[in-house]
Amino acid sequence: MENEQLSQSILITGGTGFAGRHLIQALLDQGFQQIHTTHFGQAPLPEVCKDTHVMIHNVNLTDPAAVAELVQKTQPAQIYHLASFAAVGKSFEQAEPLLQNNIMLQLHVLNAVQHHAPTARVLIIGSAEEYGRVPAGLDGRKIDESFPFNPVNPYAVTKVTQDLLAQAFYFSFDLQVLRVRPFNHIGEGQSPEFVIPAFASQVAAVEKGKQDVIKVGNLSSVRDFTDVKDMVQAYVTVMNKGKVGDVYNIGSGRGWKIGEVLDMLLAHSTQKIKVEVDQTRLRPSDVEYFVADATKVQALGWSAQIPLSETLERILNEWREKV
Amino acid sequence: MENEQLSQSILITGGTGFAGRHLIQALLDQGFQQIHTTHFGQAPLPEVCKDTHVMIHNVNLTDPAAVAELVQKTQPAQIYHLASFAAVGKSFEQAEPLLQNNIMLQLHVLNAVQHHAPTARVLIIGSAEEYGRVPAGLDGRKIDESFPFNPVNPYAVTKVTQDLLAQAFYFSFDLQVLRVRPFNHIGEGQSPEFVIPAFASQVAAVEKGKQDVIKVGNLSSVRDFTDVKDMVQAYVTVMNKGKVGDVYNIGSGRGWKIGEVLDMLLAHSTQKIKVEVDQTRLRPSDVEYFVADATKVQALGWSAQIPLSETLERILNEWREKV
Repeated sequence: MENEQLSQSILITGGTGFAGRHLIQALLDQGFQQIHTTHFGQAPLPEVCKDTHVMIHNVNLTDPAAVAELVQKTQPAQIYHLASFAAVGKSFEQAEPLLQNNIMLQLHVLNAVQHHAPTARVLIIGSAEEYGRVPAGLDGRKIDESFPFNPVNPYAVTKVTQDLLAQAFYFSFDLQVLRVRPFNHIGEGQSPEFVIPAFASQVAAVEKGKQDVIKVGNLSSVRDFTDVKDMVQAYVTVMNKGKVGDVYNIGSGRGWKIGEVLDMLLAHSTQKIKVEVDQTRLRPSDVEYFVADATKVQALGWSAQIPLSETLERILNEWREKV
Repeated sequence: MENEQLSQSILITGGTGFAGRHLIQALLDQGFQQIHTTHFGQAPLPEVCKDTHVMIHNVNLTDPAAVAELVQKTQPAQIYHLASFAAVGKSFEQAEPLLQNNIMLQLHVLNAVQHHAPTARVLIIGSAEEYGRVPAGLDGRKIDESFPFNPVNPYAVTKVTQDLLAQAFYFSFDLQVLRVRPFNHIGEGQSPEFVIPAFASQVAAVEKGKQDVIKVGNLSSVRDFTDVKDMVQAYVTVMNKGKVGDVYNIGSGRGWKIGEVLDMLLAHSTQKIKVEVDQTRLRPSDVEYFVADATKVQALGWSAQIPLSETLERILNEWREKV
C-alpha cells in the first residue's frame, strides 16, 4: 500500500462484531492509521479496538441523521458496511426486526454516502444465502454470481434487498458500490447460534464434564467454510481491486459435509465424545449443497489460505477458555 | 364457477386502489358474494365498493395485530394482496416509507395467513420492475420469469423483497403462495404520477384551454401496456389456475414506444396539441425496453383482450370529466 492510502479514513459499520474485529486487525496489520468503527450497545469492546489507530463511534445506525453525521464527520475514502442482524436460526420469528434493521441500515448508509461522501468506495456485505434453494437444473453445481435468488428465510431476503438496493444506487447515482456474497465463514468471536461454534462450545463443555453428549442438527448438508481471517482479506481485496458496481461470491470453493467438519473437530479432542441428533436444531428449508464458485474473486488475486483443521483447532481453543 | 366457490370469503388488501377497484368489479361480475377489502385514510370510496357484496374494513395494514385480526375474522379462502405504496417517480426521495410499508405489509399478511388462514391461496403482486436493467446479453428480448433481478429504484427493490419473502414462506411452511409480476397496466383511476394518465390529463387540460402544451419525459422507451381490466382478469386466472409457489409475468407481450402511445392518444383529440420534452420528467436509470414474455400465464388460458386504442380513449374521457 502507498503511504497516502494508509492515512486515508476508513469507516467500518459493525467493526466490533464477528467479522468486523478480524477486519480491523487485518487493516491494522497492513498499516492503516485511521480506522473508524461504530459500536452500539453494552457489549464489551474487542481487544483490537483499543489500538490507537481505531476510533470508536457510539452510533445507533437505525437513526438516519446519526449515520449521515458519522459519514460527514469521518469523511471515509472507504466504507465497509458490515453491521447486520444475523439471527439465521430464528429468522422467521425475528423477521420484523431483521427486515427492519438490515434494510434500513443499508438505506441510511447509501443515503449518507450519496450526500456526504459520494466518491467513497462502499463494500456491501450480502450472503451466499441469497441464492438459497438451488433450482433442480443447477443442483450440485458450484454457485457463481449468476445463480438466481431463491432465499429460504427472511434473513436471506434482507441480504438480497441490501444487495439490490446498493446496486440501484450504483445504477442511478454512480455510487462506488462493490458487493460481496460471502459463504460460511468461521473463527473466533462467532456466536454459538452458528453451527461450528455451537459444536466447539459443546465439545469444550463435554471435556470439562459440564455436559454428557453434544447435540447436533443436520449433518449431511455440504457447506463451503472459509476462515474469517481469509474472508476479511477477500473484503479488502474486493474493496481495493474489485470493479465498481460488480458483485463477488466469496468462499474457498471447497465443500465439506457438516458431519466431516464435526469429525475433524472431534479429532482435536482427546476424549471420546458422544453425538446426538436433536430434531429442534433442524431448521426449516435448510439448503443441502452450498459451495462457492470463487473464480471471479480469485481473478482479483485472492484465495483461501488457512486449512480448515487449523481454524477448527483455534475455535475449539477459544471455547476451552470460555466454557 | 361453482356456487360453493362464489360464496367463499375473498380478502383484497388495497381493494379501493387503482387495480383493486377493477378487481372487485371483476369478482362481482363473476358472482362472488363475499368480498372483503381494506380501506385506510380519508380518500372517498370508489363506487364499486358500495355493492352489498363488498365489505369494507378500516384497517391500518402497517399494524401486524390488525392484519392478523382481519384475516382471522374474515377467514378468506383467497387473498389478493394488492396494497402497496407505488411512488415510482419519487422512489429515491421516498425510499424509507416505500421500503417500510411495502415490506412490512407483506410480512404482516404472510404471518397472518400462516397463523390464521394457513390453507388460503395468496396472490402476491410483484412488478416487472423487479427485472429492471436488462443485462447486455438479454437486451431487446422479451422478459420471461427467469430473467435476473436488476431493479433500478427502491420501489422495484421492495417488489423483489415482497416476491422473495412470500416465496420463503412457501418454501418453509407450504403456504399457498402464488406470485405475479405485472408489466405496465393502465385504465381509469390511475394516479397522474404514471405516464399515461399524465399524458391524458394534460391533453384534457389543453382541450379546455387550461394549458398550452403537454410536457413529456422519455418518449423512446418501449413498454408493454395492458388494460387494467385485462390485468385483474390475469390475477383471477393465476389465483384459480396457477401452480402454488410459482410466479407469472403478466403483460400483453406487445411492446409500444411511449411516443407511439402518445400519438395514439393525441389522435383521439380533435385539437392540434403541442408536445414539449421536460428534462425534469426524465427519471434516473429508466429502463429502455420492457416487454413481457407472457407464455407462462397464457398457458393458464389468459391473454390480453382489450385494444390499446380503446383503453386510451377511456382514460382520456375520464380526464375530460376530471380536469
